[in-house]
Amino acid sequence: MISLKEMVLLHASVPADGIIKVDRFLNHIIEPTLILQIGQDIGARFQEFKIDKILTIEASGIAPALGVGLALNVPVLFAKKSQPSTMIDGYTVDVHSFTKQKDYKIFVSKEYLRPDEHVLIVDDFLAMGNSILGMKDIIKQAGAHCIGAGIVIEKSFQAGRSILEKEGLKVESLIRIQSISAQDGIQFLE
Amino acid sequence: MISLKEMVLLHASVPADGIIKVDRFLNHIIEPTLILQIGQDIGARFQEFKIDKILTIEASGIAPALGVGLALNVPVLFAKKSQPSTMIDGYTVDVHSFTKQKDYKIFVSKEYLRPDEHVLIVDDFLAMGNSILGMKDIIKQAGAHCIGAGIVIEKSFQAGRSILEKEGLKVESLIRIQSISAQDGIQFLE
Repeated sequence: MISLKEMVLLHASVPADGIIKVDRFLNHIIEPTLILQIGQDIGARFQEFKIDKILTIEASGIAPALGVGLALNVPVLFAKKSQPSTMIDGYTVDVHSFTKQKDYKIFVSKEYLRPDEHVLIVDDFLAMGNSILGMKDIIKQAGAHCIGAGIVIEKSFQAGRSILEKEGLKVESLIRIQSISAQDGIQFLE
Repeated sequence: MISLKEMVLLHASVPADGIIKVDRFLNHIIEPTLILQIGQDIGARFQEFKIDKILTIEASGIAPALGVGLALNVPVLFAKKSQPSTMIDGYTVDVHSFTKQKDYKIFVSKEYLRPDEHVLIVDDFLAMGNSILGMKDIIKQAGAHCIGAGIVIEKSFQAGRSILEKEGLKVESLIRIQSISAQDGIQFLE
């Protein structure tokens, strides 16, 4: 089976310096067997912890989070980017997207995040860490325990990891990228 | 293992007549083992067909589509509700949402839908059928072949199924609901 790193090498493209496009297997097309592998690999990084629930953000976080949910046999809760009319009582937080240069809100129903729960955050990308911080804040609002963050692809040349680690968060990324340039391609942090 | 029908009976709520809320296991929390079961059951309904790809729409279609992708071992392509800055050349179509009383566009990169492909549509809900018709249109734009639509929950009291069948589409729904009322609850079509 083709590994995540091979997938990145074979199928990721670089539309501009610092930008990686993984539409071929993660963000537009989803390769199911790769999702199982991602789930098992992230799950293994947190195997010593009690985990009751996975938290992610729609839409591109759902597939890797579901992979981890399958590996650990725990439910996946995905934060919504708009408040559904049927959500009566929810936690919310503002998240700044550097990619899209705008703020957005995420919503989680209070019903589905309980104070006694141990929650693992899972996301497809880590860049500046804002979406992870947003989810950490939601977990805190619920009085629940944040176990850490499992990431598929980390842009290690951005500040996300150090910001999250300063917040005391355990960060595990399957792929760490040192640089992305249109000329030299993708360099991994070994 | 608890079945989809039992999940609906136990955990679906009815905020108003005609409206069913399945946030507890499908649209906010996702139960991974249920997704595997949904995938296998929808996959079985289309087992006599060659299927190269699953098509769905973000965000709540992703989990059941991934379940079917896992069952049939084929990639899942999810249509986006906003055009990514990195999408250069895409198919698009307008979809009317009766639930949200507005139109929205869906986008699929031309790169990922080829004329020789056999595509199965998967979605969480079938009500008036507009999102399915939108995906069918995208498949037609690509010159690809639409095998049919696999649905988790069908509101059989709405016109979606008959509209899709008039378009020649094979529709398979795991749960068919005859009526939803705040007073009498959920009645299934047996």
